[in-house]
Amino acid sequence: MPARLTSFPPDRLATAARRVMARCDELARVTATTGKIERVYLSPEHARVNRLAAEWMREVGMTTRQDAAGNQLGRLEAADAAARALLLGSHLDTVLDAGRFDGIVGVLMALEVVRLLREPVDGGFVSPLPFALEVLAFSDEEGTRFGKALLGSSAVAGSWNDEWWSLEDADGTSLRQAFLEFGLDPARVGEAARRPDELVGYLEAHIEQGPELHRRGESLAVVSSIASARRFQLQVEGEARHAGGTPYDMRRDALLGASEAALAVERICRSEHHIIGTVGQLEAFPGAVNIVPGEARFSLDLRGEFDGERDRVWDAIARDLDEIMGRRGLRWRAREVHNAAAVMCAPLLQDVIREGIVSTLPRGADAPPVIFSRAGHDGMAIGSITDVGMLFLRNPDGISHHPDEAVSAPDVALGIQAFAESVLHLAAEPA
Amino acid sequence: MPARLTSFPPDRLATAARRVMARCDELARVTATTGKIERVYLSPEHARVNRLAAEWMREVGMTTRQDAAGNQLGRLEAADAAARALLLGSHLDTVLDAGRFDGIVGVLMALEVVRLLREPVDGGFVSPLPFALEVLAFSDEEGTRFGKALLGSSAVAGSWNDEWWSLEDADGTSLRQAFLEFGLDPARVGEAARRPDELVGYLEAHIEQGPELHRRGESLAVVSSIASARRFQLQVEGEARHAGGTPYDMRRDALLGASEAALAVERICRSEHHIIGTVGQLEAFPGAVNIVPGEARFSLDLRGEFDGERDRVWDAIARDLDEIMGRRGLRWRAREVHNAAAVMCAPLLQDVIREGIVSTLPRGADAPPVIFSRAGHDGMAIGSITDVGMLFLRNPDGISHHPDEAVSAPDVALGIQAFAESVLHLAAEPA
Repeated sequence: MPARLTSFPPDRLATAARRVMARCDELARVTATTGKIERVYLSPEHARVNRLAAEWMREVGMTTRQDAAGNQLGRLEAADAAARALLLGSHLDTVLDAGRFDGIVGVLMALEVVRLLREPVDGGFVSPLPFALEVLAFSDEEGTRFGKALLGSSAVAGSWNDEWWSLEDADGTSLRQAFLEFGLDPARVGEAARRPDELVGYLEAHIEQGPELHRRGESLAVVSSIASARRFQLQVEGEARHAGGTPYDMRRDALLGASEAALAVERICRSEHHIIGTVGQLEAFPGAVNIVPGEARFSLDLRGEFDGERDRVWDAIARDLDEIMGRRGLRWRAREVHNAAAVMCAPLLQDVIREGIVSTLPRGADAPPVIFSRAGHDGMAIGSITDVGMLFLRNPDGISHHPDEAVSAPDVALGIQAFAESVLHLAAEPA
Repeated sequence: MPARLTSFPPDRLATAARRVMARCDELARVTATTGKIERVYLSPEHARVNRLAAEWMREVGMTTRQDAAGNQLGRLEAADAAARALLLGSHLDTVLDAGRFDGIVGVLMALEVVRLLREPVDGGFVSPLPFALEVLAFSDEEGTRFGKALLGSSAVAGSWNDEWWSLEDADGTSLRQAFLEFGLDPARVGEAARRPDELVGYLEAHIEQGPELHRRGESLAVVSSIASARRFQLQVEGEARHAGGTPYDMRRDALLGASEAALAVERICRSEHHIIGTVGQLEAFPGAVNIVPGEARFSLDLRGEFDGERDRVWDAIARDLDEIMGRRGLRWRAREVHNAAAVMCAPLLQDVIREGIVSTLPRGADAPPVIFSRAGHDGMAIGSITDVGMLFLRNPDGISHHPDEAVSAPDVALGIQAFAESVLHLAAEPA
């Protein structure tokens, strides 16, 4: 273990945490909707936060670039310019009416880790470690605008799918068009891809987005895996009829079918231990107060720790939908818009994160909690090109994707310490 | 009974019905959405159909005007210029993705009745009856644009409510603003009101918007009353949470509450004989695939033959909503946006419509069916200033508020005959 693997001065950590909190506030003001936080892929707000992030990257000595998919990158070279890079990152995009920490806090903590670890040289800075340090601020993790999540990290992973170009946002703008309007060249998206042989791994700090650490009274956790997820857009077709004149025995009400379906998802998933299903969107068409809905569309987000369990639950839901829609004279179909296998965090990276967390605990404390992430993360895409490790921060009451989303400055300070110590532990491992 | 109360020549009736069908097709092409029929209050399409209707009114010898609420009126004076007027009418606005007959066919049939009954004089025409004839093409019956039905006929009835000015359409345009953009003066809407002492009554022909006549194999029916209706906009509030990270025991999912509510409406109304409840609109907020909905909004349309029964069912629904939302940790509230008492058709007008239908039947046929209208009609507003009578036409399979809405040309020919004979019977009644 190298000599400098010691605790960082508490005042430096507290200052770093305060800066992270202030910058979360600053980024929260970059929003498409005043009074709410809304920052989606390839929007003017995306361009503005990339410029801010680039400025902050340069402030800690990194060279910066925006990649071909709109991700903002900063790099601090190692003494050996041919060294591979350890990626640290998270995302800067948000859901609608978001909180201010999901993703954002991980990017800002990574910058503080770089600030703590860098060493001055020739009026600039280098990574003192056997690898370069990169901070990646991913441009689209949530999938808010185009319904497809992990667009930014998929580009970095080289797993971009050309079918996505025709995805449209709520205004009918295609992903291709949005690229052009943002000033990106769709034909060059492949240039964002990174080669596995130039990477050491990927580490991400993130709020838990769940109540486990809060319930246990712990600040930090090692993440064991990122949940297996599938997303569907479902459509139910019946027949639009006059609301007054159509007796119940002649109705084929698509909205009632969809309502039963939403409740069936809840009932089936509740009966399982580690499966969560959510209907977040539902709309009836034509959507008039005096017309029996002839069509309903809704989304289904399904997550589990293991792929097989998740798929078995989807099969059970599909059987229920057959029964419900058959009984009501409705047709239904599902289009799968997202399918991500569970990603196991690399054992080595779990170990170094555990060591990092241990450095923040009193001697003799219990081992840090190890939990799996029900939420999806950029690591799901990045896991196809390099090892992934994640550090979770306590998220009071588990509230996320909501303006009340929170994290405490003391937990952020502990998180920065653990994150930086993890990187040092990784540097101390035999290559 | 006057000498000319005889059947009209069948070829004149067939020609009239063909013209009505052709004009329904022509009006169907006046739409805001190509390939669908969509014509809402105070839209450019509204102005275009008013111009067409005015042209057709003048063609049968009527003088025309557009009133202060955008209704298109035609008048054929009686020999006695001080005579009261019999109003014949229906509406020209539509729901979204409408059929081509609801409302429209009644306006066009009224014009054919005028054409059959008018008598030439001095190079023009007059009503040969002891009353003037007016055709009213109401501008807003459906309430599609502002959520409030019967705006056109409410203006004629003098029951305009100044609170409506602030109603907004989906684009945020207020009713007041829409009046101005259409070229109408909100301050003068009161001028559209008619005085009871200048009116004989109001007769309307309309497709049934239900399956009764189709099931019975009959072309025409006397309407006994227009259903009692209430409409509500309901809001359910829970808490928006991250879809993956929030376990079921911490969720307060507003959409699941609304889904249960929609199913409760169906269950409670189905257990009643003459009550129909419909949830036509439902939406979840913030409406993202990966957020547990913190809010849901939905509409409820409730109709019955009698006000008391309808209100008792609403009370039962409200009790169910208390239980559902209480159990799920949700809050709910309802805003009543429409409340129309049942309107009984005047016995005299029911009688003359029955006589009119009898004139179309073989001697010795059963008495014409008498049914109540579950759908709302302009007569609900007009009933406050004059007697109302209605004639229903068979509506194959009861399909209405849908592109497949239909009526047959032979039924329209019979309807025109019955309608014209009804007017003659009314003229023959002692004043």
